[in-house]
Amino acid sequence: MSTPSTPTFGIGMVGYAFMGRAHSQAWRNARSFFDAPATPHLAAVAGRNEAAAAETARRFGWESVETDWRRLLDRDDIDVIDICTPGDTHAEIATAALQAGKHVLCEKPLANSVAEAELMVEAANTAQAQGIQSMVGFTYRRVPAIAYARNLVAEGRLGRILHVRGHYLQDWLTDPTSPLTWRLQKERAGSGALGDIGAHIVDLAQFVTGEQLVGVAARTETFVRERPLGGTPSVTSLGGTAAGDSATQLGPVTVDDAAIFVSQLTGGALAVFEATRFATGRKNAIRLEVNGTRGSVAFDFEDMNVLHVYDADAPTRDAGFTRVLVTEETHPYVAAWWPPGHVLGYEHSFTHQAVDFLTALAEGTAPRPGFADGLQVQRVLSAVEDSAGRSGSWSSIADVSAQAGVR
Amino acid sequence: MSTPSTPTFGIGMVGYAFMGRAHSQAWRNARSFFDAPATPHLAAVAGRNEAAAAETARRFGWESVETDWRRLLDRDDIDVIDICTPGDTHAEIATAALQAGKHVLCEKPLANSVAEAELMVEAANTAQAQGIQSMVGFTYRRVPAIAYARNLVAEGRLGRILHVRGHYLQDWLTDPTSPLTWRLQKERAGSGALGDIGAHIVDLAQFVTGEQLVGVAARTETFVRERPLGGTPSVTSLGGTAAGDSATQLGPVTVDDAAIFVSQLTGGALAVFEATRFATGRKNAIRLEVNGTRGSVAFDFEDMNVLHVYDADAPTRDAGFTRVLVTEETHPYVAAWWPPGHVLGYEHSFTHQAVDFLTALAEGTAPRPGFADGLQVQRVLSAVEDSAGRSGSWSSIADVSAQAGVR
Amino acid sequence: MSTPSTPTFGIGMVGYAFMGRAHSQAWRNARSFFDAPATPHLAAVAGRNEAAAAETARRFGWESVETDWRRLLDRDDIDVIDICTPGDTHAEIATAALQAGKHVLCEKPLANSVAEAELMVEAANTAQAQGIQSMVGFTYRRVPAIAYARNLVAEGRLGRILHVRGHYLQDWLTDPTSPLTWRLQKERAGSGALGDIGAHIVDLAQFVTGEQLVGVAARTETFVRERPLGGTPSVTSLGGTAAGDSATQLGPVTVDDAAIFVSQLTGGALAVFEATRFATGRKNAIRLEVNGTRGSVAFDFEDMNVLHVYDADAPTRDAGFTRVLVTEETHPYVAAWWPPGHVLGYEHSFTHQAVDFLTALAEGTAPRPGFADGLQVQRVLSAVEDSAGRSGSWSSIADVSAQAGVR
Amino acid sequence: MSTPSTPTFGIGMVGYAFMGRAHSQAWRNARSFFDAPATPHLAAVAGRNEAAAAETARRFGWESVETDWRRLLDRDDIDVIDICTPGDTHAEIATAALQAGKHVLCEKPLANSVAEAELMVEAANTAQAQGIQSMVGFTYRRVPAIAYARNLVAEGRLGRILHVRGHYLQDWLTDPTSPLTWRLQKERAGSGALGDIGAHIVDLAQFVTGEQLVGVAARTETFVRERPLGGTPSVTSLGGTAAGDSATQLGPVTVDDAAIFVSQLTGGALAVFEATRFATGRKNAIRLEVNGTRGSVAFDFEDMNVLHVYDADAPTRDAGFTRVLVTEETHPYVAAWWPPGHVLGYEHSFTHQAVDFLTALAEGTAPRPGFADGLQVQRVLSAVEDSAGRSGSWSSIADVSAQAGVR
Repeated sequence: MSTPSTPTFGIGMVGYAFMGRAHSQAWRNARSFFDAPATPHLAAVAGRNEAAAAETARRFGWESVETDWRRLLDRDDIDVIDICTPGDTHAEIATAALQAGKHVLCEKPLANSVAEAELMVEAANTAQAQGIQSMVGFTYRRVPAIAYARNLVAEGRLGRILHVRGHYLQDWLTDPTSPLTWRLQKERAGSGALGDIGAHIVDLAQFVTGEQLVGVAARTETFVRERPLGGTPSVTSLGGTAAGDSATQLGPVTVDDAAIFVSQLTGGALAVFEATRFATGRKNAIRLEVNGTRGSVAFDFEDMNVLHVYDADAPTRDAGFTRVLVTEETHPYVAAWWPPGHVLGYEHSFTHQAVDFLTALAEGTAPRPGFADGLQVQRVLSAVEDSAGRSGSWSSIADVSAQAGVR
Repeated sequence: MSTPSTPTFGIGMVGYAFMGRAHSQAWRNARSFFDAPATPHLAAVAGRNEAAAAETARRFGWESVETDWRRLLDRDDIDVIDICTPGDTHAEIATAALQAGKHVLCEKPLANSVAEAELMVEAANTAQAQGIQSMVGFTYRRVPAIAYARNLVAEGRLGRILHVRGHYLQDWLTDPTSPLTWRLQKERAGSGALGDIGAHIVDLAQFVTGEQLVGVAARTETFVRERPLGGTPSVTSLGGTAAGDSATQLGPVTVDDAAIFVSQLTGGALAVFEATRFATGRKNAIRLEVNGTRGSVAFDFEDMNVLHVYDADAPTRDAGFTRVLVTEETHPYVAAWWPPGHVLGYEHSFTHQAVDFLTALAEGTAPRPGFADGLQVQRVLSAVEDSAGRSGSWSSIADVSAQAGVR
Repeated sequence: MSTPSTPTFGIGMVGYAFMGRAHSQAWRNARSFFDAPATPHLAAVAGRNEAAAAETARRFGWESVETDWRRLLDRDDIDVIDICTPGDTHAEIATAALQAGKHVLCEKPLANSVAEAELMVEAANTAQAQGIQSMVGFTYRRVPAIAYARNLVAEGRLGRILHVRGHYLQDWLTDPTSPLTWRLQKERAGSGALGDIGAHIVDLAQFVTGEQLVGVAARTETFVRERPLGGTPSVTSLGGTAAGDSATQLGPVTVDDAAIFVSQLTGGALAVFEATRFATGRKNAIRLEVNGTRGSVAFDFEDMNVLHVYDADAPTRDAGFTRVLVTEETHPYVAAWWPPGHVLGYEHSFTHQAVDFLTALAEGTAPRPGFADGLQVQRVLSAVEDSAGRSGSWSSIADVSAQAGVR
Repeated sequence: MSTPSTPTFGIGMVGYAFMGRAHSQAWRNARSFFDAPATPHLAAVAGRNEAAAAETARRFGWESVETDWRRLLDRDDIDVIDICTPGDTHAEIATAALQAGKHVLCEKPLANSVAEAELMVEAANTAQAQGIQSMVGFTYRRVPAIAYARNLVAEGRLGRILHVRGHYLQDWLTDPTSPLTWRLQKERAGSGALGDIGAHIVDLAQFVTGEQLVGVAARTETFVRERPLGGTPSVTSLGGTAAGDSATQLGPVTVDDAAIFVSQLTGGALAVFEATRFATGRKNAIRLEVNGTRGSVAFDFEDMNVLHVYDADAPTRDAGFTRVLVTEETHPYVAAWWPPGHVLGYEHSFTHQAVDFLTALAEGTAPRPGFADGLQVQRVLSAVEDSAGRSGSWSSIADVSAQAGVR
């Protein structure tokens, strides 16, 4: 399907569940709706559960299946390793892949600790000197409304940033009988709501404002400390079902259920953040509001095709938040899809990510967000845990960075 | 990709533009996200513009290209004709395909006149006796929020229906320099806003309530009567751009820009309808509200993942419209996609349509909405034109039916 | 409380219930929050039920009580007759008051028939030659958001008007045991939803656009045709409670429960209207949307401090409906009340009406909307009834006017 | 106007500006719309600016004017001192009034420091032993939607409280030329956004949940540190205008412009708070969301007649936030006003407060929120300042209380 001028990149995807399906669709769409300057070839999907991996292969057209991700690194027909596994495996897979000369797209959070993330950045820097690229999957940056918000800030339309409020609200753990899956185990997931969804809202806040958090004062809480063992996650839910008899046995939840923190940005703005799986009634409410001296933007993922924009330069009489339906050809990514008013959904951002990544590969440029961006978010998460562990005392991100001796 | 127990159906699609792309993605997704009991094989796409058809084939994986749709009827590897062309071609293609023993999925409106639609129903009835199925593409029925609304009515949760208000509001023609494309020519499109988008809102009202319109009193208007010639529609817009020099030449708009009508349903409910391409600021606002003695539902496609539901049985103190985010596993079609709160977009309904159609083929049952449903909508559109042509006098749908001597 | 330069006008109010309380508060507030150039003196409230009238007098500071409204006309300390009674009494009281040289503020609808309304206009014209003013109480014109919408249209900000949709939705009659009060009796109320709330939405549409309806095609319906007798309306509800034993006896509802109609404005715009007391879940949803070539406005009284404004001149990327919170000093009427964001409620518009009326009296100018405006609305209502009585045939407002031989 | 069984209470109000007008209207309405069991007599308004006080007296019917509030304490016809002045005067006036045997209604915040507030509580306790009552004016508790939210929590409908998010967002200081009024001077106002609006959101959170904050980690910021001198506040705005020449001279802003803090409630819930006058585009957005194990409530004062309620006991398919229009007779305070859907405004809550206060006086019971409630809020504000002064370190409210040695 590639044209003479269009190079082909063989993709090897590790993981086949929720994220695996989203990425599969993205690779497939990249040349259907967009004219990406590189063609992805769905070479192989890797997973320890061969049947499950084969099922994803069948559904999305992956050419082959591997049961060990290391096999992907040996294959010449594979140029890109796409990591869709839990966070505890990211560092090992990514560094091995980069050393093997494969480009890497890694799901967020980059790693389960700052130390791991730092090693990954090191590997990425080394690889990049040889033209090997890497990227971390903060896909929400590529929701058209968010990309549009970033453009407004970059153009100076909001002026100096004064306030950020970022909430990522889910409620799928409110039910105390929801099982103890890997997302609730520190050794697999690194942290709970903080790393899984807090990472997104921190990245979005930093991406849209173009600034960074300088420190945090935080509280975290685990509301339900024991849950039924034996649950297996379903591909279409975050929770899954507790398996058979074992549902009567309980195991300890070792991650946070919710995290809240106040912060300040490099430019002086005040920021509040919240990540929780216990906001009863909120399903996937990624809410970001940014107020600046000249204007504001407000976003809620439950209404993801809309950005509310306030222009403080408008006459008082006519000023207000404008509900922009971000489905016009003039909006980022939108022209490739449908006519105005024909809204996009959750998975479209993954296609945008695939297209942008392929474009960077074809052009030999560094895609963003890179591993360094992922590390910076990791440091914020670490500072949150540090502050929460010291009863909410201020934890400076600079301190974390200094201790780490990186950059 | 088919399994032993899963039959494969070869698809031949006629048309490759806006609808062609939506249908292509739908066929491809049917077995990726859903477990449709039949596998579609993307055998051929037909279009007079070979390069354009080939481009769509390349993008979505169609195996071959034909420049004459009649060729599709001769091919043994094709079981289904999928009609994605303008309305003036539907009757000819559909009847020929049915006579050739091909199943037919036909975009709406079914035809450009009641007479054509009647012939198509006749052909469909004849074909069905031989196990050949047909369906008309009122895809919005398969937006999960709409399907959920229908379920609520069918369960009696709204009681007796009292009111319907259906508005389909767009604004892409407000600009008087928007060119004169086929959608604005009576001989191609049959009618303007009425047939293109009014058809949808009439179908939705009848589908959700389970009732039919008994008559209408209508007004239509063409606000801009001449437009630049030579425009070509773009695949991602409804309007397109006026071509070169010819932009200075004007041609007559021969269809309605907007249509409004009052109606009454078979159960006595009062209904107001509006279809317009001149509702400045509304991009694709398909709004349907149904009030019954026991409750109400309200929908707006610009926020398509939400249904607002009012339960009149609730205590007065606690009653109100509940904003149901229709992204739960318990909602129609949703379980196949993503976790709760991960919203769907415009094209997902086409996948639902493809899956339902394939299921009907596999099971040998008649898919809905069938051609008879399409004819009924055509009769409403005809009554609207009749009433508008007689200064808004009441036009009974029964009369139209009687004149036609059908059913 | 009057200052040397501020004349005082004695007010005599007829009626003491729902509207009587709203008007009482308005007169009292006119000089508290505003600097009306005339001081209202709450001289007397008249009502056949002396105790009830006295109760309203006590609550709001009316100086005296009369049991016969004719007594008010004889009193020298009364300059203004404020008519807050059901529609069947308006013509008699208003014409007598005008002939007695009293200014008149009359609640809507102006009368129960075109003929009565024409007599009232005649009386108003005669009186005005002697400097006696009259006004009809379409208070919603003075909701700040509506007055602001009117200003936008008058300034040309919406361009040529293309579409109007006006819905007045209530649901207090959905309950079939709600009693048969005067509002449901043709001889008292003239009509049902049509005259009570349809009158408002017609007036608002004409006021905001500055145009008039040229004709209608309509349907009306009475969903519940018999109701319990003996109900008495409560001052704080529209429905009231069926009294004692008589609740078991049923009487006929002789007015419409709902009315819908399509129309066209003098400038060519298409308009749909709906007035109903059966829109389950909608309590007082006065919805008005106006689309023009350059912009749009949308209003819903359930969120009365907000006007949604669309500016089609904005770049496509940044265009959308702006939610203007109409609480700024630069908005009509607002500066007299509270700081920005401190919202107003239902009754504030009555104060605005009182202030505007007093201002006109002080300045000797004709207040708007005058009786002629009320008559024009009455003609629309009459045309709706005429069309509905002829199965939805088009009824021209001009024809009604011609038959009436007035103006 | 009092009836035999209805005692009359003479009111002496100190202050005549924004709050003075709101309270005046409230006293006047208490017996117009409600049947308060006591009649307020508007005896005197006190203010150093005699002309301004006289103007408020004229507008709202106060019988007399005093230029020294101490004179009110000597008058036998005055039973209640209503304190509507800046916070630096509260302690002195309130304690003197209580000692003089006058009931006291005091605007919030109770005082400018914990120490002052403690003295006031002491005075209130002493007075109460003699049947003298006191109350602090957290009026937003009496917005019907808030009172309804409180009822839902008290009934257990939300289960155990897990999350609170409270934001009070204004933007009137975003303009750097807005003058330096008393609200921006620490010696007059005590604090900035924190005490003025943060106090409200803290009180609301504690009132609705029935729990208290146990500590905070906070950041505050003063974005604009110098402003034009000489401004005088207008009665209808919070900002005012900088006066003449002096507008060119700048003075220091000595209070916070914004405060953010994380907290935890006595029951373990996580809470985030934010009070700012720099949230560009937000005029008076008092937002409170409470999530519990069984349900949630969400409120925004910019749409003050609405409470969004989530019932987690509903079937997943039908669950969602219900938009309850809090205008039914079954809602708190509403029955006294208008029919359903006829919305209330900002000042109505002041009438509710007046009625509740008068009822407590008539019944000889302690009105809520009392001075102790005000002190508790003061302690929270103090802890916020303490934490912000120590770079966001956790400040326990209990510690503050212990230091203070009270209760």
